[in-house]
Amino acid sequence: MYDTLDTIAAIATPLGESGIGVIRISGKNAYEVGDKIFSSKSTVPLAKRRDRSIQYGIISDEAGHPVDEVLLLIMKGPHSYTAEDVLEIQCHGGRQSLEEIMRLVLRSGARLAYPGEFTQRAFVNGRIDLAQAEAVMDVIQAKSSQGLTSAVNQLEGRLSRVVSTMRKSLTDFMTRLEVMIDYPEEDLEDITIPDIAGSIRNIEGQLENMLHASKSGKIIRDGIMTAIAGTPNAGKSSLLNRLLEEDRAIVTEVPGTTRDIIEEWITIQGVPVCLVDTAGIRDTDDTVEKIGVSRARKYMDKADIVLIVIDQSRPLSMEDQNILRTAGGKHAIIVLNKSDLPCKVLKTDLASYGYDILSVSAAAGKGIESLKEAILSVVLQNGMTEGQSALLTNTRHIDLVRQTRNNLDRALHTIEMGMPIDCAIVDIRAAWETLGEVTGDTVHDDIVEEIFSRFCLGK
Amino acid sequence: MYDTLDTIAAIATPLGESGIGVIRISGKNAYEVGDKIFSSKSTVPLAKRRDRSIQYGIISDEAGHPVDEVLLLIMKGPHSYTAEDVLEIQCHGGRQSLEEIMRLVLRSGARLAYPGEFTQRAFVNGRIDLAQAEAVMDVIQAKSSQGLTSAVNQLEGRLSRVVSTMRKSLTDFMTRLEVMIDYPEEDLEDITIPDIAGSIRNIEGQLENMLHASKSGKIIRDGIMTAIAGTPNAGKSSLLNRLLEEDRAIVTEVPGTTRDIIEEWITIQGVPVCLVDTAGIRDTDDTVEKIGVSRARKYMDKADIVLIVIDQSRPLSMEDQNILRTAGGKHAIIVLNKSDLPCKVLKTDLASYGYDILSVSAAAGKGIESLKEAILSVVLQNGMTEGQSALLTNTRHIDLVRQTRNNLDRALHTIEMGMPIDCAIVDIRAAWETLGEVTGDTVHDDIVEEIFSRFCLGK
Repeated sequence: MYDTLDTIAAIATPLGESGIGVIRISGKNAYEVGDKIFSSKSTVPLAKRRDRSIQYGIISDEAGHPVDEVLLLIMKGPHSYTAEDVLEIQCHGGRQSLEEIMRLVLRSGARLAYPGEFTQRAFVNGRIDLAQAEAVMDVIQAKSSQGLTSAVNQLEGRLSRVVSTMRKSLTDFMTRLEVMIDYPEEDLEDITIPDIAGSIRNIEGQLENMLHASKSGKIIRDGIMTAIAGTPNAGKSSLLNRLLEEDRAIVTEVPGTTRDIIEEWITIQGVPVCLVDTAGIRDTDDTVEKIGVSRARKYMDKADIVLIVIDQSRPLSMEDQNILRTAGGKHAIIVLNKSDLPCKVLKTDLASYGYDILSVSAAAGKGIESLKEAILSVVLQNGMTEGQSALLTNTRHIDLVRQTRNNLDRALHTIEMGMPIDCAIVDIRAAWETLGEVTGDTVHDDIVEEIFSRFCLGK
Repeated sequence: MYDTLDTIAAIATPLGESGIGVIRISGKNAYEVGDKIFSSKSTVPLAKRRDRSIQYGIISDEAGHPVDEVLLLIMKGPHSYTAEDVLEIQCHGGRQSLEEIMRLVLRSGARLAYPGEFTQRAFVNGRIDLAQAEAVMDVIQAKSSQGLTSAVNQLEGRLSRVVSTMRKSLTDFMTRLEVMIDYPEEDLEDITIPDIAGSIRNIEGQLENMLHASKSGKIIRDGIMTAIAGTPNAGKSSLLNRLLEEDRAIVTEVPGTTRDIIEEWITIQGVPVCLVDTAGIRDTDDTVEKIGVSRARKYMDKADIVLIVIDQSRPLSMEDQNILRTAGGKHAIIVLNKSDLPCKVLKTDLASYGYDILSVSAAAGKGIESLKEAILSVVLQNGMTEGQSALLTNTRHIDLVRQTRNNLDRALHTIEMGMPIDCAIVDIRAAWETLGEVTGDTVHDDIVEEIFSRFCLGK
């Protein structure tokens, strides 16, 4: 499946005018490639120069013309990112320089790396496991400081350690149960079947806690998708602006987002929150309304929470009620805007929808803090402290942990019903295997390929 | 004017998702700043670690949460980019990680660098001269491989060496002339006034050659601005596509370009060529036409060359003639498109405009190579070999060299007219000073500030 015999190279910084650009080369010919295009005062071959050293010199093209002044970083395997010989070329961050050097590198014996191939090599060479490899992209794509912290924790092996400890216990249980089958008469150890059941129950409890916290973990990683619904005159856009101006935060664009939707990111207590404006429910003409409602419903379905903005200075309109009905079944907050004006909306009309109701004045900036707290608390019933320590943030891991728990549940059931212990062992082994997929110990090649294909180039 | 006592920091890679991001720190507290936020297996302070070494470790925030796994590059002054102590932090190339680390760096005693401030420090600290500093941005913004080569040559000091040698000669002339004034009777040396005049003429000749080649030098750096004019049905867009599909080249966007103009870059024999579509001359309604013509004229004025595309399968129209008149006074090529169809345009009608005439078929891809050669040769009467070795590519340098030549011309005139030698010395000194502005030896602070303010952040 995978060839680590050749030497790979890629541009590892974004293209654009900047001070520094980096090209990364990994593989057994990395230094040979460098020697062909790099010259410096010293004539010692790069492979003979000191590990983890920085070399200053010039990259020249085939005709001997200088292409750029560069620094070379020498990081010899196995103590490098890929666990192979790594050479990094730090040049001036212009497009021409990066592409010209890349062209020379490719002519000198390296091939263009696939997206994620450097990290994939780190995984294949055993430097990191699959959960750690996945954390690399989470670090790069982190949308908030909390998301970054939990990604770096995973990169550092926090999840991997927990998983390994559990798998070791499961192996232990299997061995003991097999001994009991092989020597049913002998009391080889002090361990009894109820003891093992208790231990399994204990691991199951840990998995359950991980799943419980994963909701906030996933939100820290991916953000809270918040759909804002409401008629245009409800003050939706001033609410949006008010939320943005106080919390405007750097956030990367979400890939694959349709262009015509207004999406803005803020962070609330370190949690990324994506505000999506669901215009389109205001038209009263039947055909158009259907399209609008169906579109809004689509966004609402995707959303973790819906803010229904209502102008409380006017009686509840048909349009308002349409929107309230459209949000049916979702987490939602009714935001009564224009709280600085006399209230003409009957709260009894709203009570039947069963949503939290909050009064704000977007114009005066009142009630905004409470609204932000409400957004967090509606979505994260657990509160954020638990979220901060969440081990699971990634859907693949959450699914695997859920399967593991189910397998253990079946094993427990088998044991408690007094069914043959062999059956319990089968389920424990299945649990051991699904858990191993988290760290990649038991994972299929195609899943590995799929994971790395989502990486960015040069990583 | 300039404070080099504090420690500066900036993100030196473009923002965007990528494998690697770099933060650069320079100044006497660079390693102190690093020690506050970085931890690794070794506990040796960074200042005590080996120069030009790479350190692996973790950046943590105030609360001790890990922010990212990083590599640190230690490059101690004076053998560093700025000639000061430099620390580079190589982290994962995500926005969150870069901004979070930057925040910590700024809290730990560094201040945000101004654009170009790292290079300005290299200049102030005497590691590079002003012409070399200017070459840094030329390397980053290079639009073609030839532009890159000439920028790297300048960065390496090719222009600076020529300028220094000339200035040394000028100093020498002034000394000799002063001796002649002080001891008019003594024949101190074998040198006579005609000898010095000859030497000045020699330097003047070199400056003249530099100015002559600077036209292609400037074009290699900035590209050939090519306006394409023609009625829509003349096949302008198929010509554009034909030129693009064969030569589509990476090129950075030109800053400050108005959005509504179509600008595409190609390279011809390593020379960047910007193709600008000047739509708007087709309307016959008077008012609209005026706007269109005035707009087209504006682009044509800016352009180095105008391609006037005419559909030769139809008789010359009023619109075609309008365009031909609008281009008056510029370098232009008449491109007779649709050469695969019978020609209905009388070449005698075109002769009066005095432009080169070329037949092409954009649809069939015929004549495109000749057109490209024609674009180069119309603009670069000198041919490209001279261009390749051009020393002057930058308008500021070209102006200064022109002033120097004029000053020397005055000095020669003074000497040849037998006027007092004091007057010649004044002109030679002026020449010596204008030439010194190229390398920054005699430059004013405000010019230096202005030059660096055009740099990008982190450089």
